[in-house]
Amino acid sequence: MKYCHHCTALLVLRVPDGDDRERHCCDACNAIFYQNPKNVVGTVPVFEDQVLLCKRAIQPRIGKWTLPAGFMENGESSLEGAIRETREEAGASVTVQEDSLYTLFNLPGINQLYMFFRAELSNLDFSPGIESEAVALFHESEIPWGEIAFPVVKSTLEHYFRDLPKNHFPVRMFDVHHGDRRITTHLISHSHKSD
Amino acid sequence: MKYCHHCTALLVLRVPDGDDRERHCCDACNAIFYQNPKNVVGTVPVFEDQVLLCKRAIQPRIGKWTLPAGFMENGESSLEGAIRETREEAGASVTVQEDSLYTLFNLPGINQLYMFFRAELSNLDFSPGIESEAVALFHESEIPWGEIAFPVVKSTLEHYFRDLPKNHFPVRMFDVHHGDRRITTHLISHSHKSD
Repeated sequence: MKYCHHCTALLVLRVPDGDDRERHCCDACNAIFYQNPKNVVGTVPVFEDQVLLCKRAIQPRIGKWTLPAGFMENGESSLEGAIRETREEAGASVTVQEDSLYTLFNLPGINQLYMFFRAELSNLDFSPGIESEAVALFHESEIPWGEIAFPVVKSTLEHYFRDLPKNHFPVRMFDVHHGDRRITTHLISHSHKSD
Repeated sequence: MKYCHHCTALLVLRVPDGDDRERHCCDACNAIFYQNPKNVVGTVPVFEDQVLLCKRAIQPRIGKWTLPAGFMENGESSLEGAIRETREEAGASVTVQEDSLYTLFNLPGINQLYMFFRAELSNLDFSPGIESEAVALFHESEIPWGEIAFPVVKSTLEHYFRDLPKNHFPVRMFDVHHGDRRITTHLISHSHKSD
């Protein structure tokens, strides 16, 4: 980010009045360009006791398996975005229950917040979108655990299959830290148990 | 958004290859400038059966009461951002339990996602930050319901005082729609009841 979007003046990285952190500021037209975390939204698409996964056709992690997910867009809710990504990446239609919010992951190191919703496949019509080279249903014993694209996906699947026998899916929030050359997923919040 | 941040060429609003919606594109240096929803994070700061509210010293809704909240910043988690905003706006230190995530609001009309966490005041040292003209504790019967700044705050407070007698605070997600000259808050998700 070097020039002003509005007037092409050279931007200055400084702390604006009344603020406490550096922003890209235009001293010609007084615009300030804020940068904030982005949300990635997706689903755990389920058919009976199987989960639908997509084999990535694009970088990063090409050839690895993932849950359908992508950047939340302006003008949509997080759940609408998750359903849209499921349609785009897996060619799948899903329905969601009222209690569908399932896992949230803070990734402050890359300025992202992931949110996954539990969803049920409406039918068995699914097919890879342009970002996927394959889409398939997996029983728990068939999940390619060593070939999962991202730690947030692996963690969501692990919790899903652990929660499934109890049919109880509390909302869980995690912090994901990049350190020691590996990524650790640390639970920081889960929903309160009912009385 | 008119000129490229990187090379000052005039931006073109068009659908990039492989995409399905218009973006601001630079045909000189091939940069694409995406715009995505922003997260607003805050707390419900509690002391015994009272909640801490801030009287807004800035627009919008100057003079109205609100929960401490603000834009999530790069490099922090949603909970870290909520605790930071509580310190900045209410001068208050809070501690949070593991199950602190409480309400989420999708506001697709203004490209925002709100998240509130339940938090406990560490002590009674609080004072207004520069965006607040007053900070005070309120019992339920004292809440200035007609003077609450934002529907997401009113909804969070209403649910909080409804959940308090049961000491059960399920995670709830809402869609907020702007229509018919008033804002309606529609529950779309709540956490699963425990077995």
